[in-house]
Amino acid sequence: MADQETPSATYEELAAIEDAFEEIDTEMIRKQYALSTPVYTKRAAVIAKIPNFWPLVIEQAPQEIDQFIQPKDSQILVENLTSFEVTRPGIAAESGPDSAGSGENPRSFKLRFEFKANDDFEDTVLEKSFWHRRAKDGWSGLVSEPVNIRWKTGKDLTEGLTGMASRLFEARRKTGDFENRGLQEYTALKKKVEHANGMNTSFFTWFGWVSSRRYVSAEESAEAEAKRAEAKGEDKSDGADPEAPDLENEELADDDQEVEVHEAGEDIAVSFAEDIWPGAIKYFTQAQEQEDMSDVDFEEMDDEEDSADEDAPVDIRGLVGASKPNGSRSVSGGAPPSKKRKT
Amino acid sequence: MADQETPSATYEELAAIEDAFEEIDTEMIRKQYALSTPVYTKRAAVIAKIPNFWPLVIEQAPQEIDQFIQPKDSQILVENLTSFEVTRPGIAAESGPDSAGSGENPRSFKLRFEFKANDDFEDTVLEKSFWHRRAKDGWSGLVSEPVNIRWKTGKDLTEGLTGMASRLFEARRKTGDFENRGLQEYTALKKKVEHANGMNTSFFTWFGWVSSRRYVSAEESAEAEAKRAEAKGEDKSDGADPEAPDLENEELADDDQEVEVHEAGEDIAVSFAEDIWPGAIKYFTQAQEQEDMSDVDFEEMDDEEDSADEDAPVDIRGLVGASKPNGSRSVSGGAPPSKKRKT
Repeated sequence: MADQETPSATYEELAAIEDAFEEIDTEMIRKQYALSTPVYTKRAAVIAKIPNFWPLVIEQAPQEIDQFIQPKDSQILVENLTSFEVTRPGIAAESGPDSAGSGENPRSFKLRFEFKANDDFEDTVLEKSFWHRRAKDGWSGLVSEPVNIRWKTGKDLTEGLTGMASRLFEARRKTGDFENRGLQEYTALKKKVEHANGMNTSFFTWFGWVSSRRYVSAEESAEAEAKRAEAKGEDKSDGADPEAPDLENEELADDDQEVEVHEAGEDIAVSFAEDIWPGAIKYFTQAQEQEDMSDVDFEEMDDEEDSADEDAPVDIRGLVGASKPNGSRSVSGGAPPSKKRKT
Repeated sequence: MADQETPSATYEELAAIEDAFEEIDTEMIRKQYALSTPVYTKRAAVIAKIPNFWPLVIEQAPQEIDQFIQPKDSQILVENLTSFEVTRPGIAAESGPDSAGSGENPRSFKLRFEFKANDDFEDTVLEKSFWHRRAKDGWSGLVSEPVNIRWKTGKDLTEGLTGMASRLFEARRKTGDFENRGLQEYTALKKKVEHANGMNTSFFTWFGWVSSRRYVSAEESAEAEAKRAEAKGEDKSDGADPEAPDLENEELADDDQEVEVHEAGEDIAVSFAEDIWPGAIKYFTQAQEQEDMSDVDFEEMDDEEDSADEDAPVDIRGLVGASKPNGSRSVSGGAPPSKKRKT
C-alpha cells in the first residue's frame, strides 16, 4: 500500500540532518576549545594561588560524581589533590577540519589529577583518557583504558580492582583481542567483581573503568568510521543513521555482560569534563559561601596547602587573606573539608 | 592579620575569568545559531511531510516538561499542534559583536507553537518569548510576558490563570511599575493562585509564566548592563562578580513572594529550547521505536494529520509509507499518542 517511489520523508533525510547537526557539534567543540584554552590557562595561574581550590570544588561536585565519593576518598582528595586539568588530545593533534581519519575524535578528552606525595599511593599524577570511538557494529561512545594506581601496601581502597582491570586489559592487548574471555585475568576479575557485587564503592575504582559496553580500539574505530563514510557516500541506509546503528540484539546483550569494575564510569567522566572543569569557579564560590555560613575556625587549617615545601608551615591567613573587605578582596581557600558534609 | 597589600588571588581575578567565559559562551551561542539555522530550515521542510511529528516528539519530552503535561493537555497537543519553532531574536536583531546595548541578549529566545483551528481556543499561533535580562540589583535570568490564550467558552484548562496573569501584566505596564501590588488585578491573581495552590496543573498555565523572581523590563536591563560595564571599567568589585550579585537579602526574599502562575516556567522553556528543539529527530526516532514495539494498529489513525484540508480524508499509509524496507525507508508519523503513556 505504501508508495515507495515517492515517499514523503525518508529516514535517510532525517539521518542526513542529524549528520549535519553532528558536524556542527564537532565544529563547535573545536571552536569552544580554541577560544577557552587561553582562559583556562589564565584560570590555572589564578587558582594555583588558592589553597585547596580543587578539593573545595570537588566537595561541591554534582550528584553524578558525589554519590561515588566515600569519606576515605574525600580525605585523600582533600589532603593531596593539588591540580586537575581537562584536555582534548583529539583537537590538539589533528590537522584538518575533518576529524575522520586524522586521529582521535574531538569529543575525546583526558583528565589529569595531580597529587602530593602521599601515604596511599606512589603516583603523583593519575591521567585517564576517554576516547570517543565507533565500534564495527555502529555503536559509538566513550571508552577508556584502566589506570593502574600503585597503591602502597595495605592502602588499596579498590581492593585490587584497578590492578586487576589493568592486568586484564594488558593481557588482552597482547592477544590482540579486547573481548578475549579465555584469559585467567578475565576469570579472576569476573569472579572478583561478582563477589564484590557493588561492595567496593571507592571513587578510585573508577580509574579502572573501560566502557559501558566493551573496549573499542583506535584501529577498530578508524575502520568503522571509514566504512560509515563509505556507506554514506553510496547512499545506503545501513549504518547511515547514527540513531539506529546496525546492532544485533544478541550481540549487544552479550557485550553488555562484559566485566566492568565501575557502574557509572562514563557519567563521572562527562561530569568532570563538562561540569566540574568549566564550572570550577562557580563551585568554588559555592564552597566559600557555605563556609561563610558555617563559621569555620581557621585554626583548623594546617600546612597541607603548601605543596612546594611541606616542611615549612605557613600562615595561611597571611597568604590568602582571612577577611573579605569590600575593596580588593583576596580569596581564601578556607579550611579543607576533611570529611564529607553530605554523607 | 591578612595581608591586603599582596593578596594571593582576588575575587576580582576570578570574576574576570568568569566574565571571559561568559563572553565565549555568548560568542558560541551566536556561532551555533549561525551554523545551525540553515540545517533547522532543512529539517523543517522534511518534518513538515511527517504527520504528527511534533506531538510525537513532545510525547517523548524529558521529565522537566513531561511532568506538567496532563492527559487533556496531551490530547490538545496531539490533535492540533502542527508546528514548533525556536528562534533567537537577540541574535537576528543585533548588529555588533557586543550584545550590550545592541538590543536583546543572544540568550533570549522565542518559542512558537502553531495549532490547527480547534475546539479549545481561538488562537492558531501561540508565541512566548523568554528574555535574558539583568535586574538593577545584579540578578540575571529569564523573564517572559504572559500569553493570553483566547480559550473558547467553558474550555479554559487554566481556569482563568493565563488571562488573569496577562491582565495584571498589562495593568502594571500602564502604571510603569512591574512590581505594583496595589492593583486589583494583583489582589485577584494572588487570591486565585493561593486558592488553587497547585491545583491547576494544566501545561497551558505555563504560557502565563513571568519570572522565577520578578519581571525585568528591557529598559531596566539595559540600564543595569550599562552600570555593570561601567563598574567593570572602574575596576570596582561591586556588581562585577556575576556569581555574587549585590542583592539585599530582604529585598530578594520579598521578591520571591511575587505571585506566579507556574512553578517551573524557566525549566520548561529551557527544556524546549535546548533539548526538544535540537533533539527533535532523536525523540521522534524514539517514538517510532516504541511504536514498532507496541505494534500499533494503523487503523487507529484518522484524518487529523492533513491540516491543509480537513474535509478530505487521506490514506496515511499511502502518504507516509506503512512499512520500513531496508532500502529507502519512508517515515511514518504513526498513530498519534492520543493519551499519555506515562501517566
